Amino acid sequence: MKREIVVGLLGLGTVGSGVVEIIHNHQRELEHQVGCSVKISKVLVQNKDKKRDVSLDDIYLTEQAEEILEDPEIDVIVEVMGGTHETRDYLLSAFQNKKHVVTANKDLMALYGRELINAATENGCDLFFEASVAGGIPVIRGIRDGLASDRLTKIMGIVNGTTNYILTKMDQEGRDYEEVLKEAQELGFAESDPTADVEGLDAARKMVILASLGFSMNVNLEDVVVRGITTVTTEDMEYCRQLGYTLKLIGLAKRKDGRIEVTVQPMLLPNNHPLASIHDEFNAVYVYGEAVGETMFYGPGAGSLPTATAIVSDLVTVMKNIRLDVTGQFPPTALHEKVLKSDEEVEAKYFLRLHVKDETGAFDEITSLFSKEEVSFEKLLQWPLQTEQPAAELVIVTHMTTRAAYERIYQQLEKMDVVIDIKSSYRVEGGQS
Amino acid sequence: MKREIVVGLLGLGTVGSGVVEIIHNHQRELEHQVGCSVKISKVLVQNKDKKRDVSLDDIYLTEQAEEILEDPEIDVIVEVMGGTHETRDYLLSAFQNKKHVVTANKDLMALYGRELINAATENGCDLFFEASVAGGIPVIRGIRDGLASDRLTKIMGIVNGTTNYILTKMDQEGRDYEEVLKEAQELGFAESDPTADVEGLDAARKMVILASLGFSMNVNLEDVVVRGITTVTTEDMEYCRQLGYTLKLIGLAKRKDGRIEVTVQPMLLPNNHPLASIHDEFNAVYVYGEAVGETMFYGPGAGSLPTATAIVSDLVTVMKNIRLDVTGQFPPTALHEKVLKSDEEVEAKYFLRLHVKDETGAFDEITSLFSKEEVSFEKLLQWPLQTEQPAAELVIVTHMTTRAAYERIYQQLEKMDVVIDIKSSYRVEGGQS
Repeated sequence: MKREIVVGLLGLGTVGSGVVEIIHNHQRELEHQVGCSVKISKVLVQNKDKKRDVSLDDIYLTEQAEEILEDPEIDVIVEVMGGTHETRDYLLSAFQNKKHVVTANKDLMALYGRELINAATENGCDLFFEASVAGGIPVIRGIRDGLASDRLTKIMGIVNGTTNYILTKMDQEGRDYEEVLKEAQELGFAESDPTADVEGLDAARKMVILASLGFSMNVNLEDVVVRGITTVTTEDMEYCRQLGYTLKLIGLAKRKDGRIEVTVQPMLLPNNHPLASIHDEFNAVYVYGEAVGETMFYGPGAGSLPTATAIVSDLVTVMKNIRLDVTGQFPPTALHEKVLKSDEEVEAKYFLRLHVKDETGAFDEITSLFSKEEVSFEKLLQWPLQTEQPAAELVIVTHMTTRAAYERIYQQLEKMDVVIDIKSSYRVEGGQS
Repeated sequence: MKREIVVGLLGLGTVGSGVVEIIHNHQRELEHQVGCSVKISKVLVQNKDKKRDVSLDDIYLTEQAEEILEDPEIDVIVEVMGGTHETRDYLLSAFQNKKHVVTANKDLMALYGRELINAATENGCDLFFEASVAGGIPVIRGIRDGLASDRLTKIMGIVNGTTNYILTKMDQEGRDYEEVLKEAQELGFAESDPTADVEGLDAARKMVILASLGFSMNVNLEDVVVRGITTVTTEDMEYCRQLGYTLKLIGLAKRKDGRIEVTVQPMLLPNNHPLASIHDEFNAVYVYGEAVGETMFYGPGAGSLPTATAIVSDLVTVMKNIRLDVTGQFPPTALHEKVLKSDEEVEAKYFLRLHVKDETGAFDEITSLFSKEEVSFEKLLQWPLQTEQPAAELVIVTHMTTRAAYERIYQQLEKMDVVIDIKSSYRVEGGQS
């Protein structure tokens, strides 16, 4: 068995520096857990001569990736440089050189995860990526551990800190989306171009990673039905509150009878659902397994130190696997063929808010539309509007129905004369389903 | 390296049967993770001839513990028989015979954990006990993983399902403690003798296990300041709600400057604290690490299948360690000497509810008592009582103070003429501290 494991680091930003520090400060604990020592021998940087805060005794800095990727002494590559195109090439080269990889890169894993896992498997290498989803929360480990003795049927996640921060502030302070977004940008909780976050794309990438792993299927970004939070209003939130719900941007992956559904959208959760109380920029992933039932992992979704600790945890696993000679055996690329649920198979409840004309027969016309599709109401609110023409606000929460039936109803409502406006429409999740 | 790992099982109740089933049904996944196969060869039962629901082909049943403990072929003992005295002897014998142990037994670990860990370490054996705290939630693994690269400063847990169920019902339905306890007993959520649960003892045992591990100190049951939930009233809960708190039975372990405090008591948490929304019989453990910040693990605290999956996860770790030859190296018995905080060092906020005489100078007399101890108020409510003599209800939430100062105030209040009655007193946790 090997007596020392040698690591090459790609990138020396805040996360990379954190990894260097943790490995330096925790040699004794690491050696206890793994049974041999570990050292970082080389680091890829953009500029060798730049001053660094972290102590780098005995570590060789290089601007040439090949000096690391092709170094026969190096066992494991830790990738914290970010980016996708060049980074993918580096990691493929690492696998060809029989090096194991730990990465924190969600964009890379969502785009090229399948290709990279295949390359790792073909070369008998490990690829670990705990830090790519929900920063410091050991959710990937939780899912992997669960897989050895359980079957997962549902993964629900608040996996984007920016949008959860925005929705929390809108809900708690009754302030508009635009106003809160602007404040979040000023405070550094949102990017100056917030598109990837607020349109749900970042969350979708993470759900691709979680669903692929949890269901052992090749899930792609195109399989995810995505809707962002840009149209959420404080009025919606007020009605949610009245009805006992909390509005959150939820990534949802469900499996039933071998068919799956993956989506990211603003959803209503019952207030007593564990995800309903995850506030501000925190992340949480709720996992349902047939044996264990419901579990949830909560913590910081980002931050350099949480991310660095997740990377070191992965590194410990890889080092153990190297010494056990079980690298590259897990996770299997895909145990199951991916079959997406059709619109007739995706079942959910829906929340719908309408402005309708207050005239004889209007309500009846609307309810008979729902009856025709065999969709019944779980909750109903009607309230007169202060408008020139007599009109009312109508809020409906349906019982369980299919996406197909709901879409047919929605399209009919858009055309109906008694419907002035469809103000909002959300999926409701987290009850008995 | 070994090519097959052989397990001996002590006990074949519902959890034991679950372990047999999982190992039988997940051979392929287990082999992938560990790199070799695993089989259960023998099971200790009370009655060999009893009919069993679980399939036991190739498994030898015995009523003689020695047949398992002294069998040279067996590598790992899985203990799911319960009990403490005899069970301790069995496990000590297992270690003498160089066998690793996985146990689900919290009573045993809280009472004899130190002795057993010492015996394991002396014999170069592993002792794992994930299932002993919070059933299916991988919290011990979370804490162990964290220790490799972080320093934990706070562990807060809702680790008793029965009391959390009772408090949830009292809070949600405004019903009295006695009434809810009776219902919980009828529903099977509480034992017919509920003492260990409602007096906080069960939670204290789990906190001994968590604190010993998380702080790497030899914490004993006598070190835990314990108070149960039997005196909690719905009035207290109503005031909590008004002030933005939720009342929970919390196990708390804190470390600062090498000094620790471990306690179990009903505490007030701010409503936005992650533990405040853990409802019914669910468990959750909140862990604060200097690097990772706050994380929380949530899930079922009990149940045979969740417990069995936790045991199998431990078994995977032990099997990996056997093959790595790193057994018995972790956790170290105690890296640090235990130093308990004195009453002058234990800092917290407190909630206090008093009935006081409504007469000139009464309020002033009370406030000057607090001033003398340099304790100031964070929140205050006063409300006239419908009594014959003019009286008022006074609810106080203090700013941070020491336990010593608070106890001095409390003792003075008990003697004061203007104080009719001290209705209740709780610690407040979970804010910035």
